[in-house]
Amino acid sequence: MSEIAKTPEPPYYAVIFANQRSVKDEADYQQVAARMEELAQSQPGYLGAESTRGADGFGITVSYWRDLASITAWKQQGEHLQAQQCGKDKWYQNFSVRIAKVERAYDFQK
Amino acid sequence: MSEIAKTPEPPYYAVIFANQRSVKDEADYQQVAARMEELAQSQPGYLGAESTRGADGFGITVSYWRDLASITAWKQQGEHLQAQQCGKDKWYQNFSVRIAKVERAYDFQK
Repeated sequence: MSEIAKTPEPPYYAVIFANQRSVKDEADYQQVAARMEELAQSQPGYLGAESTRGADGFGITVSYWRDLASITAWKQQGEHLQAQQCGKDKWYQNFSVRIAKVERAYDFQK
Repeated sequence: MSEIAKTPEPPYYAVIFANQRSVKDEADYQQVAARMEELAQSQPGYLGAESTRGADGFGITVSYWRDLASITAWKQQGEHLQAQQCGKDKWYQNFSVRIAKVERAYDFQK
């Protein structure tokens, strides 16, 4: 996901997930993160995502969605609920989730 | 900025800046990036920012603002305009900017 998401013209929604990884359980985390990425792509209303993490373990993932209903459905998806619980129990020291309506967007390409 | 921004209750605005660094001019880039971070903090309406970059040079910076007028003023700030031009000329292979209204937010802290 280390590239810019190709999203449609606004309006659409963004979920801004900023998080600090704990220093444990990297193999499990990577496996589930990859599975969640795959699973999100199959959800109705999913438009794309951007994600990166620095060497200090601080990461930002922004996923894009057609509407709030799509975001709510994804948050409540069964396998994703399990992953969210593991995130709180093991993988994240802290995180924030912000839900925002994208009103304008522009790109630059060299 | 590798930590979660302490923002007020929504609504407020987010500028989601996703970008791919070119592989050149790292010293100049770092210096100007630090200066822009400092300068943004002094702008009216600035609420905070989160930023990270992976080893592959893909970065995401999300800055938070009180309203659209604050975002417009920052985009047009003189020293920031110069930095934006250098960004296009030298520092970024590509980038996207999305302006979004944060409607909901929640945190988790271990």
